[in-house]
Amino acid sequence: MSHTLGQLAANVQGVVKGDPNLIIKKLGTLQNASPEELSFLANPRYQSQLETTCAGAVLVKTEELAQLVENAIVVSNPYLAFAQLSNLFVPVTQTWSGVHPSAVVSSTAKLASNVVVGPNAVIDDDVIIAQGCIIGAGCVLGRGVRLGENSKLYPNVTLYHDVVLGASCIIHSAAVIGADGFGFAPHEGRWEKIHQLGSVVLGDAVEIGASTTIDRGAIENTRIGNGVKIDNQVQIAHNVIIGDNTAIAANTAIAGSTKIGSCCTISGGVGIAGHLTIIDHVHITGMTMISNSISESGSYSSGMGMEPTNKWRRTVARVRRIDDMAKQFSQLKKQVNKFLEKVDNK
Amino acid sequence: MSHTLGQLAANVQGVVKGDPNLIIKKLGTLQNASPEELSFLANPRYQSQLETTCAGAVLVKTEELAQLVENAIVVSNPYLAFAQLSNLFVPVTQTWSGVHPSAVVSSTAKLASNVVVGPNAVIDDDVIIAQGCIIGAGCVLGRGVRLGENSKLYPNVTLYHDVVLGASCIIHSAAVIGADGFGFAPHEGRWEKIHQLGSVVLGDAVEIGASTTIDRGAIENTRIGNGVKIDNQVQIAHNVIIGDNTAIAANTAIAGSTKIGSCCTISGGVGIAGHLTIIDHVHITGMTMISNSISESGSYSSGMGMEPTNKWRRTVARVRRIDDMAKQFSQLKKQVNKFLEKVDNK
Amino acid sequence: MSHTLGQLAANVQGVVKGDPNLIIKKLGTLQNASPEELSFLANPRYQSQLETTCAGAVLVKTEELAQLVENAIVVSNPYLAFAQLSNLFVPVTQTWSGVHPSAVVSSTAKLASNVVVGPNAVIDDDVIIAQGCIIGAGCVLGRGVRLGENSKLYPNVTLYHDVVLGASCIIHSAAVIGADGFGFAPHEGRWEKIHQLGSVVLGDAVEIGASTTIDRGAIENTRIGNGVKIDNQVQIAHNVIIGDNTAIAANTAIAGSTKIGSCCTISGGVGIAGHLTIIDHVHITGMTMISNSISESGSYSSGMGMEPTNKWRRTVARVRRIDDMAKQFSQLKKQVNKFLEKVDNK
Repeated sequence: MSHTLGQLAANVQGVVKGDPNLIIKKLGTLQNASPEELSFLANPRYQSQLETTCAGAVLVKTEELAQLVENAIVVSNPYLAFAQLSNLFVPVTQTWSGVHPSAVVSSTAKLASNVVVGPNAVIDDDVIIAQGCIIGAGCVLGRGVRLGENSKLYPNVTLYHDVVLGASCIIHSAAVIGADGFGFAPHEGRWEKIHQLGSVVLGDAVEIGASTTIDRGAIENTRIGNGVKIDNQVQIAHNVIIGDNTAIAANTAIAGSTKIGSCCTISGGVGIAGHLTIIDHVHITGMTMISNSISESGSYSSGMGMEPTNKWRRTVARVRRIDDMAKQFSQLKKQVNKFLEKVDNK
Repeated sequence: MSHTLGQLAANVQGVVKGDPNLIIKKLGTLQNASPEELSFLANPRYQSQLETTCAGAVLVKTEELAQLVENAIVVSNPYLAFAQLSNLFVPVTQTWSGVHPSAVVSSTAKLASNVVVGPNAVIDDDVIIAQGCIIGAGCVLGRGVRLGENSKLYPNVTLYHDVVLGASCIIHSAAVIGADGFGFAPHEGRWEKIHQLGSVVLGDAVEIGASTTIDRGAIENTRIGNGVKIDNQVQIAHNVIIGDNTAIAANTAIAGSTKIGSCCTISGGVGIAGHLTIIDHVHITGMTMISNSISESGSYSSGMGMEPTNKWRRTVARVRRIDDMAKQFSQLKKQVNKFLEKVDNK
Repeated sequence: MSHTLGQLAANVQGVVKGDPNLIIKKLGTLQNASPEELSFLANPRYQSQLETTCAGAVLVKTEELAQLVENAIVVSNPYLAFAQLSNLFVPVTQTWSGVHPSAVVSSTAKLASNVVVGPNAVIDDDVIIAQGCIIGAGCVLGRGVRLGENSKLYPNVTLYHDVVLGASCIIHSAAVIGADGFGFAPHEGRWEKIHQLGSVVLGDAVEIGASTTIDRGAIENTRIGNGVKIDNQVQIAHNVIIGDNTAIAANTAIAGSTKIGSCCTISGGVGIAGHLTIIDHVHITGMTMISNSISESGSYSSGMGMEPTNKWRRTVARVRRIDDMAKQFSQLKKQVNKFLEKVDNK
């Protein structure tokens, strides 16, 4: 995993300032990088760190910034360049190839020749796995699952029957895709199960975080667009549709049949009610509750930040009586206005 | 999975209008169903879709509605009938029978003759599994676990030692039942673990969603009543007791020793504090925080819906100063009243 | 698991009142304990239960309380003593020893001689496991993972490559440690993955709940201090640092690069934004949103408790108009003051 500064620069269409033969072995932060590490300056606020960093080289945006260090790569977007280069420093953790003998693979499953299946993974009937896929240890793929090229499942992922993944998807451990949507018809005080007959279809380049759950549709499919990125512990209910390139942070939950546009960014801990439509390019801040459709792009919020508990308790007590206060205020206003009118009329 | 319209009608005590020999191969939505599919009209709002649907037949509530389509089944509750019929269209995904050779089953476990155990499942000592149960691939059942008849565990479920499930339970993937409750005694700035000696007991017909966690009791058992339905990513802490037929939506968390009544419906993202009692027939709306017991049935809320972020920020700034505003208002009111009294007395 | 009252007292430096030879077979609650069970009175509020309990003996704080029952152990902290004794009553659930033949263990992994590895567990290259560790069934340990002495993984835990656990850690089922942090650089409307090159390092005596996720760092490591206790379904993002002996309850989420002090107690359902610093000894109440750093120890809140839905709806409607009300109030106040001044000047 060693690269010269010149090689790295070529990867990101950057210009080397300093020694193109410098050997870079790792990526590092400005604060803690060693002389064998490449760092980056994305936020101008941290410019002063260029003077103190021990990094061997730094990705920067301008010639001027490059002057502040011995070695640099000048690129138009240092953060993006850093992201692109990060791929070159991923350690090889795939230590087996082919299908591990402990894996259980149905004779009717069709695996491309170079697919890797980890120990104790289970692949059921009629599964189709395209070339370049890696199935982690302990994963279970239900009957009829289909995976596009170069998709990767980390260990202990569960895909229920008929789930479809596009190409280049990444699914993290303990994620569950295709479990039954939460559908029941009330009947004489009990709940009659509505069997969930749809499936889940993911586009290309979707990433799903650890312990995230995406339920299968009741009748039709739950659908996740291309390039969607979903963090850990997110819950996507049945028949949700998510547009391309939307990103959803951890612990967010989206209720059934809601349709989210493309290029949305949804922060953590958000709750979105069912049967809503949210258009493209909407940003939702942390812990917001969405109980209505959103038809105008922009930023939406309902999360309230903390206060010292004693002060907060007084605030809450007042909020609980706000209806009363508003009525009294209204009355006082009338009283005052009436009096002032009377005075004016004298 | 083909059925005639007449057969389907018989299953739900419905009356056929049209061709009883029509072959139905799937269920579908009014919008997208094909001529081989049966759909349903539950909500009168969507009545207009009857005129445009391509569905082969539709479940409807009245003769009049049946007139609007070529083929129909008239039933008193179309949504319920749809739920009941959904069972007939579940694809067979169980592709092995008996105990898969890769499963590890203790010699002291007692499995009824027709129990199915998937690949790489692990069943520890003294486990007892009644007839008709299906244990998914990769499930782990700890020592002494007991399962009632016809219960089904999807892949990668974990049941800790001594957990008891009733009959006809369904547990989805990555659910964990019986992990230690979160119990520690503070001691000199550190936490002394309180070993959790109770277990978890589920009634009959309980369904547990993917990645849901139900902790074992500290001393006595955590108990989930008959017919309780729990969605994905729900957290039930130690010694919680949940009454029969209560339903709990995704991402809700219930803290220790709280007792929830029967026939409650708890929406998603709700947080319920510990040591509370909530009576029967309580409905809690999404993202509500419950920090007191509820002794009157009805609907409770504290979730606040979103606004555009700029407007919301002003709202929050005002809410933070509400105590101040209330005090100033109180003072102004006194001032005005005092003045008006003086004027009146003149 | 039988002990005499005298033996138990000796374990917690307590003084027996009554029969030191009494046989205790279990721990129980004051309400439901049988004559073979030991209970405890921690909260003076429940003192009256001493008169009615059937417990064979009770842990109490004073001689006077001990007089109220036949047999007692007097200790300075009954709750702590109960926690310490709970360890003696944990049933043996470990039914295999050594490495189960179905486990897949790399030839380059180094396991101390008495390590227990459950059925179908997978241990990759270069893993190092110290003595006394127990690896549950179905666990997957990625390349280079290291475990300190006496750590225990319950079934179906996933540790990604290079994750490090200290001694005496407990990790519950379906927990995932070391999955990729949620890092992407926006690029032409899509998301460029930032490969996560750091790892996760846990101190000693850390307990991690079921389905909790702790992401690996982007460049440097995510770090969890000694004695930290984390409940179920908690999400810890990349590069979070948590100080020693902090406890975090269920469903809390902490965003990237936030630093939490030591000895903090964070309740359930809390959301903490990224890049914040929270000092030592901070308490956060349930469902609070933390969007700013905290530099003063104490208790912080923003959760609002429920009201009947109808009342709550009026409250919310008023809160949405609070900015308007505040402006009108301000105006009225000016009007009144101006008028009163005028009157006074006459």
